[in-house]
Amino acid sequence: MPPVLCNDDDVRARLDAATAVRAVRAALPAHHAGTLHAPPRVRADIGGGDLVFTTGHLRDRRVFGFRAYDTLVGAEQLVAVRGSDDGELRALVHGTELGARRTGAIGALAVDAAARPGAVRLGLVGAGAQAWTQLWALCAVRPVEDVVVAARRRERAAAFATRAAAELGVRARAVADPEDAVRERDVVIVATNSAVPVMDAGWIAAGTHVTTLGPKTRSRHEVPAALADRAEVILTDSRAQAAGCPEPHLFAPDRMVELGAVLSGSATARTGRGRLTVFCSVGLAGTEVAVAAARWEASR
Amino acid sequence: MPPVLCNDDDVRARLDAATAVRAVRAALPAHHAGTLHAPPRVRADIGGGDLVFTTGHLRDRRVFGFRAYDTLVGAEQLVAVRGSDDGELRALVHGTELGARRTGAIGALAVDAAARPGAVRLGLVGAGAQAWTQLWALCAVRPVEDVVVAARRRERAAAFATRAAAELGVRARAVADPEDAVRERDVVIVATNSAVPVMDAGWIAAGTHVTTLGPKTRSRHEVPAALADRAEVILTDSRAQAAGCPEPHLFAPDRMVELGAVLSGSATARTGRGRLTVFCSVGLAGTEVAVAAARWEASR
Repeated sequence: MPPVLCNDDDVRARLDAATAVRAVRAALPAHHAGTLHAPPRVRADIGGGDLVFTTGHLRDRRVFGFRAYDTLVGAEQLVAVRGSDDGELRALVHGTELGARRTGAIGALAVDAAARPGAVRLGLVGAGAQAWTQLWALCAVRPVEDVVVAARRRERAAAFATRAAAELGVRARAVADPEDAVRERDVVIVATNSAVPVMDAGWIAAGTHVTTLGPKTRSRHEVPAALADRAEVILTDSRAQAAGCPEPHLFAPDRMVELGAVLSGSATARTGRGRLTVFCSVGLAGTEVAVAAARWEASR
Repeated sequence: MPPVLCNDDDVRARLDAATAVRAVRAALPAHHAGTLHAPPRVRADIGGGDLVFTTGHLRDRRVFGFRAYDTLVGAEQLVAVRGSDDGELRALVHGTELGARRTGAIGALAVDAAARPGAVRLGLVGAGAQAWTQLWALCAVRPVEDVVVAARRRERAAAFATRAAAELGVRARAVADPEDAVRERDVVIVATNSAVPVMDAGWIAAGTHVTTLGPKTRSRHEVPAALADRAEVILTDSRAQAAGCPEPHLFAPDRMVELGAVLSGSATARTGRGRLTVFCSVGLAGTEVAVAAARWEASR
């Protein structure tokens, strides 16, 4: 049977948050148990930029594959899923949506594991594609009471709030000042490209869960380093990937607890309502393959 | 525009030898000139096997891409072509045919560069997919006077000869003994999986060109090491790849001349009718991308 070929429009139309979350909810403990092989990414210098490959092999699902992206142009990615029984291509997904939705699903599971129980009052800094998929997936695991969103460009935050109400039925409002987006929230998600902290650690209430997306290094981080002093637990989806950056991670890798360990029941993310938790999302390799397999392998 | 998605049937039906040869005839000198970047392959251990990626960036053609294959199942490969102006996917080709046809085109150019001028009396050892695509491409660059083919399984050699006559209009006959396939030939192509020489160096007439396919190491080679003593020139499509094997190459890499240098006019493959030449085909990275781009980018 020929492989399914999907683009961003297909992902937007046909991948629901529950499916993405279910795939990642299986993949993270599988990584902890050693049945998801997710080796460090490999890269080839093609002159003017690199081709980069993240790979994964999900033994339980009998699939393997990779995500390919480049630093030459960086326009879109390609995820390929093969069956490990016959080696045949099952699905090819290109564009940027799948990766963002996968990151959203991982973020939702981190919030569900680490935030205080119950409905979530969410604060968002950033109103781009990554912020959107965090909210999109979160709605599949927790009731979202309301969202307060701040972005550098005010009109983008306003558009985000309008879209959240229309597409996800979530009460949302835009604010000009990040401080107003992160004070007195159950969950704060920071989804910016900022190289410097967009908030003060003191703005974060005790008991809040904070998520920050992408590689955060000592020289480049959107959340304050002082969060480490206040956090009970610092989670990540892959300690190896967090530690594998050329530059040291903002937080000491040996302080980090893997989300897969928490989902497996072998580690704890929160011991009380008043504790602060942090999640550093790095994008565990193989999870795009897991999400693509969950959605498109079955539909062939 | 969506990328073209092709399988082996599409390659067989829609890729002609002249197009494949033309693409490689441009790519090999580009590699020599430094405008085709073809870095060493990279691999990721996914447990039970590797995912392997060869990559290439053809600056003149404004395309880049990769070939992905695995040693876990090894059923099929995937070649992806992107434009370097916009980064968008142009073509996705999966299966095994494209790689074999690309190798055929490289082999044809080696024969055309190194064999004595004129029509070719061809000897073939091996009657599989690689032997077929060598003949298929050779017919696009030289008149083929006749083919004598030997294979371990006699009926496969007979079927090959029948197919050569039917599909390529080439006079061909099967023989039982490799010696009868390689004696007094202008060109001998060895396309087997044998780990030991399938012929004696003494069987090869002075003036013959010999091609051997795939990585040939000191412990595993289908052609005799003694060919090196008789050869005027030993060609390869990539000295770096030939030298990049974990085990030393059968022939000393510093004795090898790159085919791209010959096609560029900066090296000579043959100085007289009585000399023996050898081509070690290793499959220059990026050439699959070049062939896929030549055939499918234009057709979108």
